[in-house]
Amino acid sequence: MGRHHDTVSFLSDYGLADEFVGVVKSVIRTIAPHVTVLDVTHEIPPHDVRAGGLALARSVQYLAPGVVLAVVDPGVGTERRAVAVEVGDGEGVFVGPDNGLLASAVAMAGGAGRAVELTDPQYHLPAPGPTFAGRDLFGPVAAHLCNGVDLVELGEVVDPLALLPGVLPVPREEGGRVVAEVLWVDRYGNLQLNLAPEDIAAFGERVALQWRDQTRTARWAHTYGGLKAGEVGLVIDSYGMVSVAVDRHSAADLLHLQPGDAVSLAEPASS
Amino acid sequence: MGRHHDTVSFLSDYGLADEFVGVVKSVIRTIAPHVTVLDVTHEIPPHDVRAGGLALARSVQYLAPGVVLAVVDPGVGTERRAVAVEVGDGEGVFVGPDNGLLASAVAMAGGAGRAVELTDPQYHLPAPGPTFAGRDLFGPVAAHLCNGVDLVELGEVVDPLALLPGVLPVPREEGGRVVAEVLWVDRYGNLQLNLAPEDIAAFGERVALQWRDQTRTARWAHTYGGLKAGEVGLVIDSYGMVSVAVDRHSAADLLHLQPGDAVSLAEPASS
Amino acid sequence: MGRHHDTVSFLSDYGLADEFVGVVKSVIRTIAPHVTVLDVTHEIPPHDVRAGGLALARSVQYLAPGVVLAVVDPGVGTERRAVAVEVGDGEGVFVGPDNGLLASAVAMAGGAGRAVELTDPQYHLPAPGPTFAGRDLFGPVAAHLCNGVDLVELGEVVDPLALLPGVLPVPREEGGRVVAEVLWVDRYGNLQLNLAPEDIAAFGERVALQWRDQTRTARWAHTYGGLKAGEVGLVIDSYGMVSVAVDRHSAADLLHLQPGDAVSLAEPASS
Repeated sequence: MGRHHDTVSFLSDYGLADEFVGVVKSVIRTIAPHVTVLDVTHEIPPHDVRAGGLALARSVQYLAPGVVLAVVDPGVGTERRAVAVEVGDGEGVFVGPDNGLLASAVAMAGGAGRAVELTDPQYHLPAPGPTFAGRDLFGPVAAHLCNGVDLVELGEVVDPLALLPGVLPVPREEGGRVVAEVLWVDRYGNLQLNLAPEDIAAFGERVALQWRDQTRTARWAHTYGGLKAGEVGLVIDSYGMVSVAVDRHSAADLLHLQPGDAVSLAEPASS
Repeated sequence: MGRHHDTVSFLSDYGLADEFVGVVKSVIRTIAPHVTVLDVTHEIPPHDVRAGGLALARSVQYLAPGVVLAVVDPGVGTERRAVAVEVGDGEGVFVGPDNGLLASAVAMAGGAGRAVELTDPQYHLPAPGPTFAGRDLFGPVAAHLCNGVDLVELGEVVDPLALLPGVLPVPREEGGRVVAEVLWVDRYGNLQLNLAPEDIAAFGERVALQWRDQTRTARWAHTYGGLKAGEVGLVIDSYGMVSVAVDRHSAADLLHLQPGDAVSLAEPASS
Repeated sequence: MGRHHDTVSFLSDYGLADEFVGVVKSVIRTIAPHVTVLDVTHEIPPHDVRAGGLALARSVQYLAPGVVLAVVDPGVGTERRAVAVEVGDGEGVFVGPDNGLLASAVAMAGGAGRAVELTDPQYHLPAPGPTFAGRDLFGPVAAHLCNGVDLVELGEVVDPLALLPGVLPVPREEGGRVVAEVLWVDRYGNLQLNLAPEDIAAFGERVALQWRDQTRTARWAHTYGGLKAGEVGLVIDSYGMVSVAVDRHSAADLLHLQPGDAVSLAEPASS
């Protein structure tokens, strides 16, 4: 027997308009009534594995111990593998498709321990069609793990090094400039870049931003509220990353930037 | 005393922007603190009894035993009856308005056993106005049922055969064609039809679709991922029904189809 | 030690698209695993302290005993205070920013008892940046309160009379007219006014509405269903307030009214 768990943290691109999330939770409760399912988010854009992987990586250090169930799975029913991956010597188990979704979070949780492909059908529900793996495969497996089923009973052991890696964009230097990328636009319109503050510390208190044919000078501030009305600021966000922000307004809307856009940063020409 | 329950599965058209859902859950928790409420969905379009009934029918076989609370209730405060209906010899109880919302799910759960109209005010909250039955009537009744109050204590017994039936559209044949209807567009834009695969098995591997002045030929595939880019496919969906799909894109957007639209299917002219 | 709690009712403007809400819940579960978090709503418009305060005030009498965690916090990281406020002799504790958000709900719960500013960092998480107080400060404090940490251990006692009041718009009389304001548009498009029925009882069964350059005559009805198709009605809503409604349609859309708009009410000219 493996260890028991009482929390499943659940992230998906299922949205909340359909009954998908509710049905997966019901399936888990039917198999493992003692479990509490905590929703991380279900509003990952449909099929957006990168956005799901980033949200999971941002969350992982705050998640309660237990099972992490993550389903953003455009390849459902095809040859992509369904996997379960242990971290922290079994304190946590990630369950989801092996399409890169889990990779960054697993790495941040200390890296993969044992891993299995979820091939044993006795831990699945019979499926009327092959398209709802959250209900028929991943959810049931998460519940059985909570009940103490050991990882290796769920299917064939796989080499954790063979799991598909995530693709995290790396900033690059280019003639004194740093070319970054927008990782995430949050609800308030703040733009998280793939930069730590030290990556651009040399530029000083003001930083020239450039994207497409636009340029703006941004000023470092400790909080959104420390910015003047309409001023573009750089703030260390709640994950320790550099974000572009405007106080009480959406920087994304004002600057017409979205996830995946490139932004180049440099020392202002004449500061 | 009736049997105790520890799960309420909750579906409504309340949406998540207002505090409606949270308040109903708080009322349930105050009356029956041991109960876990699982949200099926609350984003049924406002007043759309048909959409709510279909979502409930799709979910019901996966719901944990207990009380099912369903509120899509355009006639709130008028003469439509509020009811509780047992299924499975009391293993489950449906609570909601008698407007057809519950009918298909009750049928799928084996049909109605005992039923009552919820007329006894001692199991309701005093209502400042007559418009929030989820908080003042259905939610409290669901909680009291979980506490072991027997169905017949809640009001007057009614004939289960007199409950309002649901209206499920039936496909029809018309000169070698099958005229179906879009039941549901899911988050990914897949179009569920009111057809089982055997209803159109005679047409073979390719099927001609026709709606309004549009025509397309669709090909059967086992999974979305088995379709070529942009190809229109027929896939057996996760409920065993025929769905029209396009891999990683919204078939609803591409084909301009929505719930309630008629689609006629036939053997392709020259295949 | 203070008393223990097992419910946190949670309202915010975090939305459900990002992982904010899930992360706060995970933090609470990690500190206080016995606690159930009930979502009031998280779709308060970003930074809209007034809308958040109104939703909390509407909900408060229905909330289960315990901790109320409310975060609409445009001044996060600035000098606005973070506070915890007892009500009902400690049966409930409100946790959130001291920016007026909590004020109306605290008043409806009987008024503030003891209050503290949340200055003791041992009850917070270390914060990578100063912008996610729900995760790093308010959520952990709510969890520690549930574990029995007494209010006064959390920081410096403050005078409850010095807490920032909420701003509730008061209707005014003007030459026989009553000038009211739209407080809230609900999911169905019903317009809640800042009026009790007795405020306009003198006008009789029909009431003339005027806003901007528009006028309409509304008729009192007991329920939405008691209105004729397209008729504009006045209904006592589920909170006992006057609402402007149209049966099965959105009065807000039809009349082009939204929260904060002024509406003047009077006896019809010739009724």
